Amino acid sequence: MIRPLAVSLGDPAGVGPELIAEAYVRRNEERLPPFFVCGGFGTVPEAAQKRGHSFPVVFLDRPPTAREDFQHGLPFVGDMSAGYHPGVPDETSGWLALESLKLATRLAVDGSAGALVTGPIAKAELAKVGFDFPGQTEFVADACGVPADDAVMMLAGPQLRAVPMTVHCALAEVPGLLTIELICRRIRIVDAAIRRDLGIASPRIAVCGLNPHAGEKGRMGREEIEIIKPALAALRADGIDATGPHPADTLFAPHLRPTYDVAIAMYHDQALIPIKALDFDQGVNVTLGLPIVRTSPDHGTAFDIAGKGIADPGAMIAAIRMAGEMAARRAKR
Amino acid sequence: MIRPLAVSLGDPAGVGPELIAEAYVRRNEERLPPFFVCGGFGTVPEAAQKRGHSFPVVFLDRPPTAREDFQHGLPFVGDMSAGYHPGVPDETSGWLALESLKLATRLAVDGSAGALVTGPIAKAELAKVGFDFPGQTEFVADACGVPADDAVMMLAGPQLRAVPMTVHCALAEVPGLLTIELICRRIRIVDAAIRRDLGIASPRIAVCGLNPHAGEKGRMGREEIEIIKPALAALRADGIDATGPHPADTLFAPHLRPTYDVAIAMYHDQALIPIKALDFDQGVNVTLGLPIVRTSPDHGTAFDIAGKGIADPGAMIAAIRMAGEMAARRAKR
Repeated sequence: MIRPLAVSLGDPAGVGPELIAEAYVRRNEERLPPFFVCGGFGTVPEAAQKRGHSFPVVFLDRPPTAREDFQHGLPFVGDMSAGYHPGVPDETSGWLALESLKLATRLAVDGSAGALVTGPIAKAELAKVGFDFPGQTEFVADACGVPADDAVMMLAGPQLRAVPMTVHCALAEVPGLLTIELICRRIRIVDAAIRRDLGIASPRIAVCGLNPHAGEKGRMGREEIEIIKPALAALRADGIDATGPHPADTLFAPHLRPTYDVAIAMYHDQALIPIKALDFDQGVNVTLGLPIVRTSPDHGTAFDIAGKGIADPGAMIAAIRMAGEMAARRAKR
Repeated sequence: MIRPLAVSLGDPAGVGPELIAEAYVRRNEERLPPFFVCGGFGTVPEAAQKRGHSFPVVFLDRPPTAREDFQHGLPFVGDMSAGYHPGVPDETSGWLALESLKLATRLAVDGSAGALVTGPIAKAELAKVGFDFPGQTEFVADACGVPADDAVMMLAGPQLRAVPMTVHCALAEVPGLLTIELICRRIRIVDAAIRRDLGIASPRIAVCGLNPHAGEKGRMGREEIEIIKPALAALRADGIDATGPHPADTLFAPHLRPTYDVAIAMYHDQALIPIKALDFDQGVNVTLGLPIVRTSPDHGTAFDIAGKGIADPGAMIAAIRMAGEMAARRAKR
């Protein structure tokens, strides 16, 4: 049995609190693993009320270890909280988001929690209270002692898993960032993580080209010939089932999606466009290559709809379920 | 009543002939406008047989003018034909593809056909027989006396319409190709064509950013600030309902797709990935900005499955239907 998962609030002015409440309400029908929330014991019940839910909360001075605590009420750890002002982020909400993230990460890293699920933050708000990482992924990697480059973001939905090789940079910088070494290193991390955490014995990895039609034999760009093909050859020599470079426009088509376990994209939108077009309300952001299991719903704070009772909890529920499944697989080894 | 549409074979070794046959067989249930085929009177019936179909053909010395001709048999115009060797393109198939394209285009341009629907070709095969255009779109534009830059490709499926501002170039070249002038000129063509040919009085045009998250206020690339925003301001000043730049990864999500009539992408895969992920078997390639109506199924020759009876005729059927609808709208004006 895995330990309960640590869930961070995300920005309390965003949709995080209400989605956590919604996930808790549906814990049995969705067969969710037990989890607890870090901070926000005043915020989450208020957010729940706005969605017409009321449930007991259990305030603990340390992480719960058993499922029972979870059934009697939603467990909270950490005494920081704040009022609920949906749609209105300020310094207090930024502070609470950061404290919640810090505590949840620490408890996952020291093993008191079975995994880490992070609620959505607004980077600009967190920057105001001294958060100087590009995003939560880099923060968590740092807390784990893993170089940021080796913490690999995977987007996973019911119809597709995709990993971008480059992420938050201008499109013009992408061709210059791609190297044989980068592609090899990150695909090795993906391959190992999928074997270990998703239980797929021989992951089929389909790699996109960078250019239209994967460059058409060099007629539209040479990155496929000079970088991607040599990288794939090196990976295959090591027994990794990496195919491509495939034309990115057709790789995500319905008849090709069942032919691979994960698609490797060369840049942010090449991975995120198909995931969000297909699986918007169920997309999970998973960080591969960490000593801990970390997932997150693949959407933002959605300040514009926070507190209105309409935010879809699908991605939060999927993130909690997936973190539980990954942690259970690791525990069996 | 519009005149019957001219359909070109595409490469006869590809899936073109069998999809034309399949469209003809389903002409009544799919309520297709009357069409005729340019060349290949020996090829198409053979391809039909491989799919278990048999129907009369009508050989005409000039384009049919009435629906009656179409109901008695599939009409053919042009006496060029060749044997059916699916999956095996050669010089003869390249020659027939080119002759068919030339005739169909000429008949559409001179008004003897109501519209032009082109079957899929293989550019490399056509190049061997002297075709020196980047693709059929540029050939058709040239035949119409329209600069290639003003023939704008739109991909249209049941769930999405998308237009890329740049098309067949290396990804590294995209940022340098984007200019305020290019975006303004091409979006004006899109706006006018959608009003005229799709009958949408005030097209809602949603424009993607180039960079992840549309650049996040210049933090990841400045093309949104320096090029796309000024272009959109100029367009809006002229009464065109163009919004953006929107983050491309979320713009194609299910809840946002109903908020616009067409999405404008900055490069090939940004438009083609969502179309093919969502509407692979029904995607139509439409050329906007021409004096004639021209559509095409949005897939290639598929040599690997040609003649096997499994190619999906959805996109060919959609291309024929859409060409008929567009031609009928023009005829009413």
